[in-house]
Amino acid sequence: MADRKDVGILAMDIYFPPTCVQQEALEAHDSASKGKYTIGLGQDCMAFCSEVEDVISMSLTAVNSLLKKYNVDPKLIGRLEVGSETVIDKSKSIKTWLMQIFEESGNTDIEGVDSSNACYGGTAALLNCVNWVESNSWDGRYGLVVCTDSAVYAEGPARPTGGAAAIAMLIGPNAPISFESKYRASHMAHVYDFYKPDLASEYPVVDGKLSQTCYLMALDSCYRQFCNKYEKIVGKQFSISDAKYFVFHSPYNKLVQKSFARLYYNDFMRNCSSIDDDAKEKLQPFSNLTGEESYQSRDLEKASQQVAKHMYDIKVQPSTLLPKQIGNMYTASLYAALASVLYNKHDSLDGQRIVMFSYGSGLTSTMFSLRLNNGQHPFSLSNIASVLGVTEKLQSRHETLPEKFVDTLKLMEHRYGAKDFKTSRDTSLLPPGTFYLTHVDSMYRRFYDQKPVEETAGGKAKCCNGFANGH
Amino acid sequence: MADRKDVGILAMDIYFPPTCVQQEALEAHDSASKGKYTIGLGQDCMAFCSEVEDVISMSLTAVNSLLKKYNVDPKLIGRLEVGSETVIDKSKSIKTWLMQIFEESGNTDIEGVDSSNACYGGTAALLNCVNWVESNSWDGRYGLVVCTDSAVYAEGPARPTGGAAAIAMLIGPNAPISFESKYRASHMAHVYDFYKPDLASEYPVVDGKLSQTCYLMALDSCYRQFCNKYEKIVGKQFSISDAKYFVFHSPYNKLVQKSFARLYYNDFMRNCSSIDDDAKEKLQPFSNLTGEESYQSRDLEKASQQVAKHMYDIKVQPSTLLPKQIGNMYTASLYAALASVLYNKHDSLDGQRIVMFSYGSGLTSTMFSLRLNNGQHPFSLSNIASVLGVTEKLQSRHETLPEKFVDTLKLMEHRYGAKDFKTSRDTSLLPPGTFYLTHVDSMYRRFYDQKPVEETAGGKAKCCNGFANGH
Repeated sequence: MADRKDVGILAMDIYFPPTCVQQEALEAHDSASKGKYTIGLGQDCMAFCSEVEDVISMSLTAVNSLLKKYNVDPKLIGRLEVGSETVIDKSKSIKTWLMQIFEESGNTDIEGVDSSNACYGGTAALLNCVNWVESNSWDGRYGLVVCTDSAVYAEGPARPTGGAAAIAMLIGPNAPISFESKYRASHMAHVYDFYKPDLASEYPVVDGKLSQTCYLMALDSCYRQFCNKYEKIVGKQFSISDAKYFVFHSPYNKLVQKSFARLYYNDFMRNCSSIDDDAKEKLQPFSNLTGEESYQSRDLEKASQQVAKHMYDIKVQPSTLLPKQIGNMYTASLYAALASVLYNKHDSLDGQRIVMFSYGSGLTSTMFSLRLNNGQHPFSLSNIASVLGVTEKLQSRHETLPEKFVDTLKLMEHRYGAKDFKTSRDTSLLPPGTFYLTHVDSMYRRFYDQKPVEETAGGKAKCCNGFANGH
Repeated sequence: MADRKDVGILAMDIYFPPTCVQQEALEAHDSASKGKYTIGLGQDCMAFCSEVEDVISMSLTAVNSLLKKYNVDPKLIGRLEVGSETVIDKSKSIKTWLMQIFEESGNTDIEGVDSSNACYGGTAALLNCVNWVESNSWDGRYGLVVCTDSAVYAEGPARPTGGAAAIAMLIGPNAPISFESKYRASHMAHVYDFYKPDLASEYPVVDGKLSQTCYLMALDSCYRQFCNKYEKIVGKQFSISDAKYFVFHSPYNKLVQKSFARLYYNDFMRNCSSIDDDAKEKLQPFSNLTGEESYQSRDLEKASQQVAKHMYDIKVQPSTLLPKQIGNMYTASLYAALASVLYNKHDSLDGQRIVMFSYGSGLTSTMFSLRLNNGQHPFSLSNIASVLGVTEKLQSRHETLPEKFVDTLKLMEHRYGAKDFKTSRDTSLLPPGTFYLTHVDSMYRRFYDQKPVEETAGGKAKCCNGFANGH
């Protein structure tokens, strides 16, 4: 049995659809006031699945890509879990579709299923997988966690908060990104801030205002408990100075700014040394607010964001690259934000701490801490950054007109839960090696194919994967 | 930190609806041939949710009941996970509804969400929870696992394979039912044997024949791997003689008989000493069948069941009590079968081994081993048996006419995924302390109440639980 120090994330890859729409163009198309989506939400661009992609195809692509790029034998995977809130089947897990990749190599002894609660399922899967490696039942093999979601909203104010992506993470000991499990703190409660009770529709029911308050209350609760646990174990106060970066799951970037300002305000209320005199003076007028009042106060929001701005730029802004460009990826969002930090800062993370906040409406939330080290090839921060290839992936996208985006969503409204249809099979925009949906038969069975990785000399396509044709 | 030996199930409770229909009456009602359901499927009775119950109310009842009966402070729960394939909301987990019980006591720091893949979600939740207790992130508190499902089928041959129940299990160290994790073996694959792609309907799409073959193939694969792992670690061959009881998840009892016969046939093919000469002679004609042929051979099925009959009666039959009386409970089925063994045999289990086989269509399956000891009150086998109170619960049920069962399912077809309706609030058949659905508002929000536990002197109802009225 290998040694089990530093259990955590060994490797990572992200896939997002190459089709996207500019938020600025969407503002104009929706006749929204200029800046409503770009400044009000803080978003630049939104990725979406075309009719040949879905959460299954995206996760097939992400898993297949991770195994190839890090040269991991599929037989070495002992656990595979998926976090998702995009329901294509209410019984059959997305994990079972992914088994196709492993069945080929003869490996069917792979534990784990799908975890679900809104955007939190990926975090649940990740924590489960880490626990497995630390448990008596670990058999020495790797875990694999996949977060995959397509966030789409009905026409209206929430529509620009969509997005789509799949992220795959390899889990094991001696990881460059390991868990400081003892400080982990959760806040779970029964609320109806965002939910999907209309089973025939892909769109959620959203109470935007409630959702934001619930999010900030959960953040407060987790941070308070996190700090308490830290203080108990380490013997000194925790403040925002004690982490190099903070990574928030949030449906849009503007809320990330509010989140960090909220931690800053917490530190102020706890008299932390991280808060300088100028900030103390500016926050003093808000020191007697009740919790409830503090969530409603626009003045506090403004003042705290202003005083936190400098630290935000250093400690949070590096995580916002992908979420601003792709949009809300539900379960994948938090890990796309983490991927952004790794991509932007991989050469200065050795020995550093990253604090993560995961939120899923309904609600479930956890704050946890990661400890970084450079790692060893292929499981090194620099190799992870290189595999993520964020700049190349973003640059090779195809900007779509808002009309095309709206048309796609209309088409998908009819196809959601439907049977007996063929897709266009148009893969022209997809990167080589991408999986895509070809058809759904009269028994609702879904069939996928893989775009060839390369053209061979004779013009014959070569696939990564034996089940590319018709499995 | 407490010591972490013998991590497993400390306590258990089961709730099933008091409404049920006799399979014999259903045969007559469906004009099915006599014995088709009772002998062909091997079922006696089927429980079903009336219009005031669902998987949320049943799990509220089971969790509340477990905490009260074993006198566990809700603050001592550090993890709560649910396994279910009955989707009421595609985003909000059942776990978040259960948080109501814990929020009251001020405990919101409870990890875990819902796990899903057909009937396997409960096993996934259970293994996750055990891993958590064995991991670095364990904080010394208990885990709680809930399996809750309502199995309903469209009119036709699968309808009598329904059922409904919720089971709650308390997880921690020094358990009377602990895990021998090292022998655990899984078989996971991508198949369409049973799935729920029609999102607007509660009913699954079922390929009965394929499902049975997949089930038996998965069983074979798990058993083979289980035996290999056992042999590697223990240094001797594993055979059916090495476990006191075998517990199978199966949608109906007849398949349980086939399952055990299949293990018996495996032992025969592996030349195990557990197979006597007479049996060897009777199985000899089938020793050259290919795997595929062996699944199709009715003669093998007959012969193997016949020679295994004596051992089946001893090693399997005690687990069939609840499944025969309640029906298929999906995620709860396997644990209702385990509960049956505990109830029937609690005074002779000390030091014994029980081997479990969990199957979820799609498919995911795991064989795992439990080691029993008498335990200490309240977490003792005898107290678990007493809390389960199987006989009393079965005897206090109300047999319903098939017409009423069919009418209920018709009503629920309209209510599934619906909003803006009130239930009858008729709790006359429910045991005291049972939670029930009162209404679903225009925003799809669901509201539950609790039937009073006892009548107080002044005639005023007393509830276990503060949120009984209108939360």
